[in-house]
Amino acid sequence: AQSSVVMFGVIDTSIGGFSNRAEDLNGPTLLNPTYLNRGSVKTSRTELRNSAYNSSRFGFRGTEDLGGGLAASFWLEAPITNDDGQQGLSTFARRSTVSLSGGFGELRLGRDYTPSFWNETVFDPFGTNGVGTNLIHTVINGSFAAFGPAITPVPGITNVTGNSSVRNSNSIGYFLPRDLGGFYGQAMYALHENTKYDPGTATPPGVSAAGLLNPGTVATTRTGRYFGGRFGYQNGPLDVAVAYGNTTTGDSFYAGTTSYLKVATLGASYDFGPVKLFGEIARAKRETEYDIAPLAGGTPDVDLDGYLVGATVPVGPGLIRVAYSQVKYDFNLPLSFAGDPKANKFALGYVHNLSKRTALYATVARVRNKNGASLTVGGPAFFNAPAGVFTPKTSTGYDLGIRHAF
Amino acid sequence: AQSSVVMFGVIDTSIGGFSNRAEDLNGPTLLNPTYLNRGSVKTSRTELRNSAYNSSRFGFRGTEDLGGGLAASFWLEAPITNDDGQQGLSTFARRSTVSLSGGFGELRLGRDYTPSFWNETVFDPFGTNGVGTNLIHTVINGSFAAFGPAITPVPGITNVTGNSSVRNSNSIGYFLPRDLGGFYGQAMYALHENTKYDPGTATPPGVSAAGLLNPGTVATTRTGRYFGGRFGYQNGPLDVAVAYGNTTTGDSFYAGTTSYLKVATLGASYDFGPVKLFGEIARAKRETEYDIAPLAGGTPDVDLDGYLVGATVPVGPGLIRVAYSQVKYDFNLPLSFAGDPKANKFALGYVHNLSKRTALYATVARVRNKNGASLTVGGPAFFNAPAGVFTPKTSTGYDLGIRHAF
Amino acid sequence: AQSSVVMFGVIDTSIGGFSNRAEDLNGPTLLNPTYLNRGSVKTSRTELRNSAYNSSRFGFRGTEDLGGGLAASFWLEAPITNDDGQQGLSTFARRSTVSLSGGFGELRLGRDYTPSFWNETVFDPFGTNGVGTNLIHTVINGSFAAFGPAITPVPGITNVTGNSSVRNSNSIGYFLPRDLGGFYGQAMYALHENTKYDPGTATPPGVSAAGLLNPGTVATTRTGRYFGGRFGYQNGPLDVAVAYGNTTTGDSFYAGTTSYLKVATLGASYDFGPVKLFGEIARAKRETEYDIAPLAGGTPDVDLDGYLVGATVPVGPGLIRVAYSQVKYDFNLPLSFAGDPKANKFALGYVHNLSKRTALYATVARVRNKNGASLTVGGPAFFNAPAGVFTPKTSTGYDLGIRHAF
Repeated sequence: AQSSVVMFGVIDTSIGGFSNRAEDLNGPTLLNPTYLNRGSVKTSRTELRNSAYNSSRFGFRGTEDLGGGLAASFWLEAPITNDDGQQGLSTFARRSTVSLSGGFGELRLGRDYTPSFWNETVFDPFGTNGVGTNLIHTVINGSFAAFGPAITPVPGITNVTGNSSVRNSNSIGYFLPRDLGGFYGQAMYALHENTKYDPGTATPPGVSAAGLLNPGTVATTRTGRYFGGRFGYQNGPLDVAVAYGNTTTGDSFYAGTTSYLKVATLGASYDFGPVKLFGEIARAKRETEYDIAPLAGGTPDVDLDGYLVGATVPVGPGLIRVAYSQVKYDFNLPLSFAGDPKANKFALGYVHNLSKRTALYATVARVRNKNGASLTVGGPAFFNAPAGVFTPKTSTGYDLGIRHAF
Repeated sequence: AQSSVVMFGVIDTSIGGFSNRAEDLNGPTLLNPTYLNRGSVKTSRTELRNSAYNSSRFGFRGTEDLGGGLAASFWLEAPITNDDGQQGLSTFARRSTVSLSGGFGELRLGRDYTPSFWNETVFDPFGTNGVGTNLIHTVINGSFAAFGPAITPVPGITNVTGNSSVRNSNSIGYFLPRDLGGFYGQAMYALHENTKYDPGTATPPGVSAAGLLNPGTVATTRTGRYFGGRFGYQNGPLDVAVAYGNTTTGDSFYAGTTSYLKVATLGASYDFGPVKLFGEIARAKRETEYDIAPLAGGTPDVDLDGYLVGATVPVGPGLIRVAYSQVKYDFNLPLSFAGDPKANKFALGYVHNLSKRTALYATVARVRNKNGASLTVGGPAFFNAPAGVFTPKTSTGYDLGIRHAF
Repeated sequence: AQSSVVMFGVIDTSIGGFSNRAEDLNGPTLLNPTYLNRGSVKTSRTELRNSAYNSSRFGFRGTEDLGGGLAASFWLEAPITNDDGQQGLSTFARRSTVSLSGGFGELRLGRDYTPSFWNETVFDPFGTNGVGTNLIHTVINGSFAAFGPAITPVPGITNVTGNSSVRNSNSIGYFLPRDLGGFYGQAMYALHENTKYDPGTATPPGVSAAGLLNPGTVATTRTGRYFGGRFGYQNGPLDVAVAYGNTTTGDSFYAGTTSYLKVATLGASYDFGPVKLFGEIARAKRETEYDIAPLAGGTPDVDLDGYLVGATVPVGPGLIRVAYSQVKYDFNLPLSFAGDPKANKFALGYVHNLSKRTALYATVARVRNKNGASLTVGGPAFFNAPAGVFTPKTSTGYDLGIRHAF
């Protein structure tokens, strides 16, 4: 039995520093002629961190050859926090799947990455890890992905449950076979697992997605469903892919509303040899649909547009990494004269490979926020007391660490 | 060191559907001549599930030969929820034992299955997993086994603690040696681990089993103790066994009461070759004993009688499974004219073995409830709002899945 | 990949019994001439326990040779509760590190033992496990080490987070190289990971160490920092070492106070062959420093002095263990006439090795408390209701168990 189980993992530890500056942009006005500007406040922190180059993990996997080209396999992968040891193999929240594969491709059941996530990380020189993470991912997996039933956090155990823009539980995935002349693709459907009431009018108001009484929320019967896909072409130095994902982030049976997070991305990379170029464009939308369109007062859509350009340059056993990303929100507020919030980020790093498995790395990054955007490279939030006085400006940070894989 | 550790496990994933129907059986009465019957309400759900054929698990075990026929061994086995990845190796709640074994048999310490559980699962063609699980187990491990200190559930982590009719922590087990001409047997005692006060009158009122102040409950000094045993005979096609288990489910030092869950079962199977037959009869009792018998108003015993008949039929690489089980409650209410609640279940399934380790399976099952019994094959509860209007009727469900062992 | 991962562990299970006696030492007084002495109350408990000889654990570790004398390695070790299976590999709270080592020594990052802990356990014949644990460790890791942010316990999962006198998260450790003619040494610095505000007057009052609003506490900006070291000499039968540790246990930005736990120890052992002798002296201090010394009303320091003498005697495949330890508190209360609380402990045990990996063991121990000290060998607390009536006296206990390593 044992011969069929492979253990694998990554331990990535770094010292990370963050410094985030907010400014009081107000001055004396006619109504408040004695206003005293509060200047700027910097919040900073130094941490021993994990996962700043590759995500720390520990997993078990295995494959059984069933004959006739058919194979069964499993993959159980835990996120671990090796800086404090608090999260061991408590969950297999990174991936937890069983697969049946053959000439038809692969059918995969369980918890897995969403297809729409892959473009965010594959075409980012920093792979959505550490201070260099591109802003598209920061937003789509951050404030944009605040959906699903609220989870009581367990001390020390993050990622304990729930779906995100990165991963879905209770999913059915399909992957195209590998030998399609460079073409590749996958699709995923994730079940919402809500209780359905027949007749529908029996649906209890104030019921949670799991069918439990949950005062304060409204009846949800479709929340949690996801479908998405990714299709690409890889040949020689070229890799290009499109992806789309649609998550039902909320619904109210009686109000007749359904909310979605929709993400569409196009990414590409081209390896010239001395330099490899990366690019990605993304559009995300938080949308509320109405069974009966309201005359006024409906929730407006929130749009996000973003792009990324980057490059990696091999130097001996090392790799220089550089990326620039930008995002812009559109809140679709009809009577607002304020400019759309936007932010950009520049990241520069170097990875020094001691071996295939072990590397030292350093990254620096800086985010500039405009018009009220409040994105950081990590660390403490922008200073904001009393509320509304300070405006988030720059966020800078660094990672200095070691990645050991096994 | 490593050579002594074996990893093993099961990943079982299925798509499961449930549909449970409750009916309003009321009509207009003299007191309420305008009563409007509410008809029936069906609650249904589709899930990606785990453990519908074999329980999903991941374990480590090993044995050391100490010479002279003596051996030391350990077994650590975690329940995992591979459909959502939420429960990894957080607990070893399935089994967590160290053993010393030799010519005398085996002494086993830790958390283990109760002897009384084995008859429930060994003589069930569906092995107490999935929609086909026999009703005897459904009740004894469900409403009948609601004992022990209440545990705050950790999100995503079931089975985090506590004893049940299936497993006990803090247990001392003994197993007969293997070579007794077909006879086998085991016994278990589980420590209650409560604090004892001497003199007894110092026992604090309102103290929990762990000795902590716990307003609202009464002093418990024996709650959590279990003893039980199982004895059987297996030879050729025949396997037959009796089992008994006694759990102290509650006690009050000052009230002079002690409550028990007592379970007695007799099961057998006979393999004719083209068909293997299964049978089980069970009696369970929830009982409250009084140091001084009350003249009136004592808590009456609740009895449960159940039986199971089943069969499996090998067909090529597959196996047809069929079972019928029935349970009947007796609440021993002296002045009640209502019929005793009872329920029966029919389950039919097919397992298709792709290899020894990997199988596809399908099961369908249906429960019929009478006189207020409210058992389901799984999924959402029967509709019950407002309380008392609807009467649980039928519950149907299916599992369609894959089991991969390693 | 798999070849690089080694699994290892210890399963230690025992039956342990505890009996702790408190006495009412009061009698009739002039003010209360009819006082009825309540005698003594014994609280006792029998448990199935883990870790009474060696701590139960399960771990994964591996090393990669990087060439040129350089190596990278990892170590992930979980505490497990094998008596009840509740704590599996939920955390790697025993140790969770990645290291880079070479001719310069070893650099180690993550969660690890504090240097100051090692003297407490290495020079104790009972290794700070079970009823025989020396009192120095009992106090320093008990009431003296009650620091850090309060953690909501997760049912069944101890050690889920946080620093203690034994281990620190977010630490950077350095170890001297091994070939220094018998000299050895290590140093550790652990980051506090608090948010810093610039200007400092922006520090929010009532903010927790993590930067979250936390009404009722005061701004902490340095709490959680640790530094310490250990230096020793081992040659032939002799081993001697000094250690020091300093934990910032609390601070208040606006009050200008900082609190520390400081521990200094000196330990030695000498192996005469038929008998090995052990000795340790320790001084610990809980201290509050003031930016501006208060004229009166400051928090006085609490001092702890302790010593240990012990011996082990090999007898065939077994080992007799004996130890005596004593601790004395000094609360530095200027106007108190009460004697300083103190306690002593005598422990005697025998370990019978069935093999290198498997052993049976038995230990008995007794603590005597004086002047209000309330230390136990384990088990339930001393009886104390109503508060102040009873005075803790003796605590006795035993362990009878099996240790199986792999």
